Amino acid sequence: MKHLADMLIEQSREKKSVLVVGLDPDPRYFPEFLLNRMESRTNEEIAAAILAFNRIVIDAVAEEVVAVKPQLAYYEVYGSHGIHALEQTIAYARTKGLLVINDAKRGDIGSSSEAYAKAFLADGPMAGDMVTVNPFLGSDGYLPFVEEAQRQGKGLFLLLKTSNPSSHEIQNLTLQNGDLLYFKLAEDLSELMRTTAGENGYSFIGAVVGATYPAEAERIRGLLPHCIFLVPGFGIQGGKAEDLDVFFDENGNGALISSSRAIIYSYREGRENGEATTEQEMLQAIKNAARTAKEQINEVRLHSSANRG
Amino acid sequence: MKHLADMLIEQSREKKSVLVVGLDPDPRYFPEFLLNRMESRTNEEIAAAILAFNRIVIDAVAEEVVAVKPQLAYYEVYGSHGIHALEQTIAYARTKGLLVINDAKRGDIGSSSEAYAKAFLADGPMAGDMVTVNPFLGSDGYLPFVEEAQRQGKGLFLLLKTSNPSSHEIQNLTLQNGDLLYFKLAEDLSELMRTTAGENGYSFIGAVVGATYPAEAERIRGLLPHCIFLVPGFGIQGGKAEDLDVFFDENGNGALISSSRAIIYSYREGRENGEATTEQEMLQAIKNAARTAKEQINEVRLHSSANRG
Repeated sequence: MKHLADMLIEQSREKKSVLVVGLDPDPRYFPEFLLNRMESRTNEEIAAAILAFNRIVIDAVAEEVVAVKPQLAYYEVYGSHGIHALEQTIAYARTKGLLVINDAKRGDIGSSSEAYAKAFLADGPMAGDMVTVNPFLGSDGYLPFVEEAQRQGKGLFLLLKTSNPSSHEIQNLTLQNGDLLYFKLAEDLSELMRTTAGENGYSFIGAVVGATYPAEAERIRGLLPHCIFLVPGFGIQGGKAEDLDVFFDENGNGALISSSRAIIYSYREGRENGEATTEQEMLQAIKNAARTAKEQINEVRLHSSANRG
Repeated sequence: MKHLADMLIEQSREKKSVLVVGLDPDPRYFPEFLLNRMESRTNEEIAAAILAFNRIVIDAVAEEVVAVKPQLAYYEVYGSHGIHALEQTIAYARTKGLLVINDAKRGDIGSSSEAYAKAFLADGPMAGDMVTVNPFLGSDGYLPFVEEAQRQGKGLFLLLKTSNPSSHEIQNLTLQNGDLLYFKLAEDLSELMRTTAGENGYSFIGAVVGATYPAEAERIRGLLPHCIFLVPGFGIQGGKAEDLDVFFDENGNGALISSSRAIIYSYREGRENGEATTEQEMLQAIKNAARTAKEQINEVRLHSSANRG
């Protein structure tokens, strides 16, 4: 069984990309030709439009990204129909050779985490290749994900420093010994990541660190050399390409950069609300936005590796 | 629109119960007559058996409990079919006049939390009356739940001190000023709870505090007089009735006590694995277990209120 981190790095090398596109489908921003398909606004209709939307996005980005990252909230809001659209989206992404990161931020007491880990990392219809995990319940809440990932040759990303403005409220609390909370959490994970590293030196246990917090990323990298960062917040949330340098190692590995709205809604740019977009225009705009993002990121990570090497 | 905390307290008074039963359906523990219905073990078959199981549990406990608490992990593991069973379970619980607490432990960046809040608190098929929320992302991650609850006349429970053994790893970290993390988090919520209290003095924003941690509950209660506790961990996880005293106010209000496995699998007690149970035996065993738990809890909360009053 191939180690997930090695598979990720190989695919990044082949595709010359560490870009991940977030699949956060929000019908309010859909183009007219999809809005027309959900006139009575039942969950079933909306779910069908979401799947159609995602298929266009996947077709557009398949050559430019290593993985897609569905954000579970955008599917759950339409109940079982929404989850069915997610399952079909995941199946479609696989036919295009893409890895799937379920951005679920799950985490619970042990027995419940075991069930979540099966849902997202075993062989069910919703399972992808990696899942994001919230560590607030402590190790017996996240170890079931580690164990399932190990069994299945899959991976996970633990939240360490999230991209949102108020992430500091808990994650940056100063502890008695002067350390910040996210740093202490990183220390706790250090040995586990070291002992689960693959051939390329990276573990299948990664961490979420927002593009909006490069200083924190640099400190965490010093502590966790075996950790792949999943880096949301690039684009709309304010993360800039020039700040991404610190997320990568000297070979340009060690991080996946995720962008959602700036790519999947790029066809809306410069248009009046409600102005029609054809499917072909939508696909082309998304493809261009993904390619541009990929190239901006590559400039930083390959430049940075040239500098350091 | 009725304030959720007032509705909860009224119903607790009418039913003479603050018991919540957790709906954590695990097919491994199902009785033979349900196992027989899922011979080819497709997700669709399992989901149908889960719904049948839950309907029996709901029929058995409807008079003994104020709410049911589905644990989302046990439904997600069967994908969209599992979520459909959850939706039907919620609809069935409503026909029996029960409140529904979705134990989802969601929490994300603002825009995603908005979608989760809609999924669990608005009018979709998966929405209940309350939802559990993980505060690790800070206030912009949980305020969307507060706002949606306010709009809809519903409620939420923020994780403060979870019932699992390793909850201390993050939640009990000592901060620079000597406070423990869960205590600091409680302080942050104090004003918000005070200003959202209903006629009975309780907010629609509650907190999860495990039955296994009565000392912590007592400290939190001192800080948060307007907070309804959702108290898991009573029963199988080791929480004892005599320790529940500190969770209640002088009127026996202020806490909902949740039990899952000790009630819903009570029909297995004293039986060999695989020994047949009829539907009637299962229903009766669950009813008895729920009634016993309710009475044990009432003895503590009414005794304690008599003592203090």
